[in-house]
Amino acid sequence: MSLLVVGSVALDTVETPFDKIEDALGGSATYISLAASYFSNPVILIGVVGSDFPKQYIELLEQHNIELEGLQIVDGEKTFRWGGKYHYDLNVRDTLFTELNAFQNFNPVIPEKFRKSKYVCLGNIGPDLQIKVLDQIIDPQFVVCDTMNLWINIMKQDLLNLIKRVDVFILNDSEARLLTEEPNLIKAAKIIREMGPKILIIKKGEHGALLFTEDTIFSAPAYPMEMIFDPTGAGDSFAGGFTGYLHQTRDLSPENIKRAVIFGSTMASFCVEKFSTKGLEDLSYLQIQDRFREFKKISHFDESD
Amino acid sequence: MSLLVVGSVALDTVETPFDKIEDALGGSATYISLAASYFSNPVILIGVVGSDFPKQYIELLEQHNIELEGLQIVDGEKTFRWGGKYHYDLNVRDTLFTELNAFQNFNPVIPEKFRKSKYVCLGNIGPDLQIKVLDQIIDPQFVVCDTMNLWINIMKQDLLNLIKRVDVFILNDSEARLLTEEPNLIKAAKIIREMGPKILIIKKGEHGALLFTEDTIFSAPAYPMEMIFDPTGAGDSFAGGFTGYLHQTRDLSPENIKRAVIFGSTMASFCVEKFSTKGLEDLSYLQIQDRFREFKKISHFDESD
Repeated sequence: MSLLVVGSVALDTVETPFDKIEDALGGSATYISLAASYFSNPVILIGVVGSDFPKQYIELLEQHNIELEGLQIVDGEKTFRWGGKYHYDLNVRDTLFTELNAFQNFNPVIPEKFRKSKYVCLGNIGPDLQIKVLDQIIDPQFVVCDTMNLWINIMKQDLLNLIKRVDVFILNDSEARLLTEEPNLIKAAKIIREMGPKILIIKKGEHGALLFTEDTIFSAPAYPMEMIFDPTGAGDSFAGGFTGYLHQTRDLSPENIKRAVIFGSTMASFCVEKFSTKGLEDLSYLQIQDRFREFKKISHFDESD
Repeated sequence: MSLLVVGSVALDTVETPFDKIEDALGGSATYISLAASYFSNPVILIGVVGSDFPKQYIELLEQHNIELEGLQIVDGEKTFRWGGKYHYDLNVRDTLFTELNAFQNFNPVIPEKFRKSKYVCLGNIGPDLQIKVLDQIIDPQFVVCDTMNLWINIMKQDLLNLIKRVDVFILNDSEARLLTEEPNLIKAAKIIREMGPKILIIKKGEHGALLFTEDTIFSAPAYPMEMIFDPTGAGDSFAGGFTGYLHQTRDLSPENIKRAVIFGSTMASFCVEKFSTKGLEDLSYLQIQDRFREFKKISHFDESD
């Protein structure tokens, strides 16, 4: 029973007030797979790159036991590139350029042997492509889906069709408001859960994340960080840690889903500590567990001593 | 050992998408005192109103065992009035008018017998007035201070002088950024704590609150509410619940301060459920305890089952 991940694989050019990096490893499927690789083994990555995709990045992914048979390499094409700039207030980001390149005509094909995957994480790409992937999975048991504002704006109907079929839908607070036109997040969550997904996670960046299930609301704190070097990939790392942990434990109880939210937040916090994927490249399980416990420390209180 | 509260006592005209109310009971000292009255007995209120201040409001405060000997009633003057309008997104508020009236020449005088108060809550009024109050307290043991963006903008030096002398400083996230010119809240918190207050609380509205002490950061969730009728007074109710609980328990340990933050959040959540002070007027201690436990339920998770 493997974990299948689809999304973008990209070369990112990122500028923050602290540094600048060109053609760094990026993309939603990349961050998700790396984060999930600390829990799941193997992770199957479905995506596309051009023939210019650096061999060292292939090796990096392979070192994390990420299965790349489903990563198409389009000969003569260039890899999808994204350029972004973060301001002094890292909550504000400008997209400087988007070159689709090989991604333009991406037709995700799941190799036959991976179609029996039970756990699926549909990383942020167009909902039409996410549907194409889901259609090829024979009997998915647990489907997690991430998205972004772009798709709500230009492919809303596809997205609505998709989320009827997923178990967990992840989006951020402004996207939840955009999708529902409802400023109150608790009401927005109710509306979105009525659209299909039994489990909803609203990411709130520096304010943590909210988990909504049938009977519970769970509020996860953000890890308090003085230095965020590069917020790129935080949301994807969250999805990867969340799905990876649930795939590892095979336990979909409400209590374990809460833990998964914390492991997702844990991976997001490691992600933003360094540029590009660097923060996810060399972690020990002990480090991950330690940070999980720190989340507990900052959010727990007792009724009495 | 009583709890002394200073701040504004006002007549509020508030419009939200749901209703409109005119000349309702309002003001920082009012909300703080009412919220604290569920924990502390008596609460001593220091403030000023005009001779038009409705008798029924006096009675309401007295019913909550709030000691009004320090509430000046200026003959022939009108009470401080504030008018505000909340938009569909309740996070956005316009001030429609501010009439200082009796507040214009407010010179807070603490009746002799209250000058030995050990617990002091300096509600949101000008820092010059907060200092005047503090100067009259003989040997304050625990001083909590709230503020707002206006004072950071026009009386920054007074505010800086004041917070050197307080134990707990409370402000919201945008005010913390304004005061420090630092977008990262964790860094901003460090900077503010270096300005004096050993304990800092940053309120984040719908995202909860952060508590910073010497060794700990504590992240309190917001109570998930589908319906916020009137956000006015939420921050003051937080300060009142927080200070009242600490005054009641006389326990300034880090664990108890965390509980106080949750009791503050609890009172803020009751406050915004109804218009004006209505949400704070008729609570039972059982209701308060139940909600406290709900905060625990939404924020706690276990390492394993």
